[in-house]
Amino acid sequence: MMNMTGKPVSDSRTVQTRLVLPPDTNHLNTIFGGKVLAYIDEMAALSAMKHAGGVVVTASIDSVHFRSSAKVGDLLTLESFVTYTGKTSMEVYVKVEVEHVATGDRTLTTESFLTMVAVDSDGDPKDVVPVLPESKEEIELYESARVRRLNRKR
Amino acid sequence: MMNMTGKPVSDSRTVQTRLVLPPDTNHLNTIFGGKVLAYIDEMAALSAMKHAGGVVVTASIDSVHFRSSAKVGDLLTLESFVTYTGKTSMEVYVKVEVEHVATGDRTLTTESFLTMVAVDSDGDPKDVVPVLPESKEEIELYESARVRRLNRKR
Amino acid sequence: MMNMTGKPVSDSRTVQTRLVLPPDTNHLNTIFGGKVLAYIDEMAALSAMKHAGGVVVTASIDSVHFRSSAKVGDLLTLESFVTYTGKTSMEVYVKVEVEHVATGDRTLTTESFLTMVAVDSDGDPKDVVPVLPESKEEIELYESARVRRLNRKR
Amino acid sequence: MMNMTGKPVSDSRTVQTRLVLPPDTNHLNTIFGGKVLAYIDEMAALSAMKHAGGVVVTASIDSVHFRSSAKVGDLLTLESFVTYTGKTSMEVYVKVEVEHVATGDRTLTTESFLTMVAVDSDGDPKDVVPVLPESKEEIELYESARVRRLNRKR
Amino acid sequence: MMNMTGKPVSDSRTVQTRLVLPPDTNHLNTIFGGKVLAYIDEMAALSAMKHAGGVVVTASIDSVHFRSSAKVGDLLTLESFVTYTGKTSMEVYVKVEVEHVATGDRTLTTESFLTMVAVDSDGDPKDVVPVLPESKEEIELYESARVRRLNRKR
Amino acid sequence: MMNMTGKPVSDSRTVQTRLVLPPDTNHLNTIFGGKVLAYIDEMAALSAMKHAGGVVVTASIDSVHFRSSAKVGDLLTLESFVTYTGKTSMEVYVKVEVEHVATGDRTLTTESFLTMVAVDSDGDPKDVVPVLPESKEEIELYESARVRRLNRKR
Ligand SMILES: CC(C)(COP(=O)(O)OP(=O)(O)OC[C@H]1O[C@@H](n2cnc3c(N)ncnc32)[C@H](O)[C@@H]1OP(=O)(O)O)[C@@H](O)C(=O)NCCC(=O)NCCS
Ligand SMILES: CC(C)(COP(=O)(O)OP(=O)(O)OC[C@H]1O[C@@H](n2cnc3c(N)ncnc32)[C@H](O)[C@@H]1OP(=O)(O)O)[C@@H](O)C(=O)NCCC(=O)NCCS
Ligand SMILES: CC(C)(COP(=O)(O)OP(=O)(O)OC[C@H]1O[C@@H](n2cnc3c(N)ncnc32)[C@H](O)[C@@H]1OP(=O)(O)O)[C@@H](O)C(=O)NCCC(=O)NCCS
Ligand SMILES: CC(C)(COP(=O)(O)OP(=O)(O)OC[C@H]1O[C@@H](n2cnc3c(N)ncnc32)[C@H](O)[C@@H]1OP(=O)(O)O)[C@@H](O)C(=O)NCCC(=O)NCCS
Repeated sequence: MMNMTGKPVSDSRTVQTRLVLPPDTNHLNTIFGGKVLAYIDEMAALSAMKHAGGVVVTASIDSVHFRSSAKVGDLLTLESFVTYTGKTSMEVYVKVEVEHVATGDRTLTTESFLTMVAVDSDGDPKDVVPVLPESKEEIELYESARVRRLNRKR
Repeated sequence: MMNMTGKPVSDSRTVQTRLVLPPDTNHLNTIFGGKVLAYIDEMAALSAMKHAGGVVVTASIDSVHFRSSAKVGDLLTLESFVTYTGKTSMEVYVKVEVEHVATGDRTLTTESFLTMVAVDSDGDPKDVVPVLPESKEEIELYESARVRRLNRKR
Repeated sequence: MMNMTGKPVSDSRTVQTRLVLPPDTNHLNTIFGGKVLAYIDEMAALSAMKHAGGVVVTASIDSVHFRSSAKVGDLLTLESFVTYTGKTSMEVYVKVEVEHVATGDRTLTTESFLTMVAVDSDGDPKDVVPVLPESKEEIELYESARVRRLNRKR
Repeated sequence: MMNMTGKPVSDSRTVQTRLVLPPDTNHLNTIFGGKVLAYIDEMAALSAMKHAGGVVVTASIDSVHFRSSAKVGDLLTLESFVTYTGKTSMEVYVKVEVEHVATGDRTLTTESFLTMVAVDSDGDPKDVVPVLPESKEEIELYESARVRRLNRKR
Repeated sequence: MMNMTGKPVSDSRTVQTRLVLPPDTNHLNTIFGGKVLAYIDEMAALSAMKHAGGVVVTASIDSVHFRSSAKVGDLLTLESFVTYTGKTSMEVYVKVEVEHVATGDRTLTTESFLTMVAVDSDGDPKDVVPVLPESKEEIELYESARVRRLNRKR
Repeated sequence: MMNMTGKPVSDSRTVQTRLVLPPDTNHLNTIFGGKVLAYIDEMAALSAMKHAGGVVVTASIDSVHFRSSAKVGDLLTLESFVTYTGKTSMEVYVKVEVEHVATGDRTLTTESFLTMVAVDSDGDPKDVVPVLPESKEEIELYESARVRRLNRKR
């Protein structure tokens, strides 16, 4: 089942659609940023678990800019996949779009990169197989990962 | 955005991946049937909202047989789409598969058909545009819907 | 405590009253079908646990028709009991009524039959003692169970 | 539906059975006191709503002593009814018992009296019809209510 | 870290600010008493855990009078500390204030005393170090604890 | 209550202690990153609401590095305050520490800066009064805010 030479990015692609409900929102019926951040982290964990075949923890999340808000009754569509692998860490890209049901219009809410680390049952980092980018977008994100990695270290 | 002659089935396709967590399970770490049923209803609502472009309510769910269970740490993948439309009602098909992360093995957990009704702001049934089946599977499900509808009425 | 020749239906009777709250509802303040389905499964599990004296899992739920809706501020009253026992399975009947607080009026929301299976700590099916119907309603439901069981197998 | 001369205690009797689940408990699998207190308040609200036919708020809860604990997998059975009525307030008695599923043994966990007040849509106190005690237990609790009321005022 | 002769009250002081959200409230947007009771118990547990350095259970809560209510959008500020220690039990004082954001006005919502008991991994009571009151308020509460303890025993 | 020339940083200081519970954690009993992110956003909203005296939304969160993890039974202590104000935006600093109850040891889990924007009831940005730094730490954070602001814009 496990490919020693690597796993394609597509193996970790994950999609989620969620309805914005009253408990997720403030008085103005606008979704809380913290709710969106929790969804983003969950997506990154799902993609990383699929790639690593086991438990993962969140090492970091790059900055997140909320470009547009979502209201009660809107749909959030989240998409994520592993873009780059180190020895034990995986960089995951997560995109969040909001869809207004009545019109079908979609807007970008936010996007971010997270670093997830595969761990064994003692919580110690554990090697992952390399990720294999295939499409043009996947290859670009794979190649730009090194720069993002350096920026995180500063 | 709204097509007066109908909307393709693909417009209502919805996918969701969820991690099974301790609060969803009993002492044996097995997911509660009620949790899966709530997820199924949420998927049917999302697909029907996308088709109807507004609020929907659940009129009925056909019988559900749980063929295999899911444990803490497994991934549930749910998929749904509108299979048939009446005047105000939509039949939605929902499939639930469980994926064991370590091996990547997938098993069918369950599948069901639900009837969702589009409603206006008073909660009264409201007309929906016809659904347009395109693929072979979509056409088969569209054609067999009439029999399922008759069985529900008995 | 454990009766080798069987347990009366009344030992598994369970009642629950719940207040419909905003997080359980959509924009129209109408309760989600999935919420009601989760309550129904919980009731079936409680009745089956009382009969079996241990852990149970949901094998199936028969079709559910939602005849009337419940709004924020309404009371849901759920009632359940074991109607029939096989070797390791129990059929449970669940009834849901909605009560409008201001008037005290009660309407049937829905009713369904579920099949619950007693399991040991490995999750394997485990024998249950027979259920003993006593009242007229209990005897009728016991006798009609065979037909429902056949319909489920088709 | 509304009886101008009063409503019997039995109109407000409410029963609830709940399964203790992992999220309700601490590391030792013992239910949190705060969870039980939230259940007790919910029961008192349900009984008072049934008596008053509308919204109620909690004015006070008498002291609560937790005599025995409940573990994951135990059943909690809660019972409540209105014991006494003032002009706008209702005293509600709530009893909590724990049932160990394997043996069917029941123990008293705790009991308490709460004072609930009927309110109109501005949140102002609103008159309630008198409660009519019928059984011996109901009459005793009705008569001892005056003493408890005085103790609360000190 | 552990002081054999005792720990100052200040070691167990705990503060919490919470935003009142729609799921915590009834139709009138007023917070449920049960929600406040659950917060109070959580505060008492946090203070007692800090003093005892391990798991605690709630033995009792003194009566609670809700003096003012909180609405959606208000802030609740909770404060707690250990006031007195017996052999295995700790008395904890909890105060709840509501702050109206637009004006910054603060009102007392309620206050109460709880008795928490330190327990070992079998759930049996376990000795705690004495608490050492320092400020005037702490010394007064320490000295009045004996009277409250007697009243609880009656 | 409202100071036209500004409000001191101390007016927005907020503290929160939380117990890590099983539903917040993965199989290894380690808290989810998304749970911590949701807490951080809630803290930033509380501080910004206190400063602005009304509703706020999250515009952005700077990158977050999780330096140490928290387990079930640990205490999280969160602290936040407004560090800088623009016309309608506020920069908020949030610090998260984990406390191991048995030893009382505290470690830094993470820290971050968020930008919150005050909004009126239409969700449009609304002016805030300037924040007035007083302590040495507050003045340093106020002065370094300009650099962080520039980095965010790139
Ligand atoms: C579903 C509901 C709106 C139907 O109302 P109604 O007065 O029966 O309306 P109609 O007779 O015009 O039926 C509307 C459509 O629903 C369909 N329908 C009604 N009951 C149904 C059932 N039990 N199963 C399948 N379809 C059903 C009808 O066939 C009709 O379809 P069509 O317009 O495509 O021909 C109504 O029963 C209701 O509000 N039920 C509660 C829904 C709810 O709140 N569910 C959540 C949990 S309680
Ligand atoms: C239910 C389950 C334990 C049955 O296992 P199995 O290997 O089929 O076991 P058996 O063939 O011995 O069947 C056991 C009993 O269940 C009954 N049963 C099995 N599938 C059933 C179904 N879909 N509907 C009704 N009864 C069913 C059998 O008739 C048998 O009853 P009996 O002992 O009274 O004669 C198994 O299918 C399972 O684990 N399903 C998932 C359950 C679950 O986790 N549900 C929650 C959500 S996924
Ligand atoms: C609290 C509990 C551990 C006490 O057990 P116990 O067998 O009575 O033990 P002890 O008699 O040794 O009492 C232990 C301490 O608790 C105190 N205590 C017991 N019941 C009390 C009550 N109702 N109110 C206040 N203090 C009480 C005793 O005074 C004693 O204090 P001390 O050691 O400082 O002198 C036990 O009653 C229990 O487990 N209750 C359930 C707790 C729980 O799970 N609460 C959550 C919701 S159910
Ligand atoms: C934040 C938001 C209100 C800004 O709206 P806008 O049209 O860009 O308004 P403006 O250009 O007037 O900017 C308002 C302020 O926000 C600041 N701002 C805008 N985007 C920002 C970002 N990504 N990071 C930091 N600050 C930002 C601006 O600098 C400005 O600050 P100032 O008034 O102190 O000079 C808008 O982007 C929005 O609604 N985003 C979604 C917020 C939300 O709902 N979050 C929850 C999860 S989606």
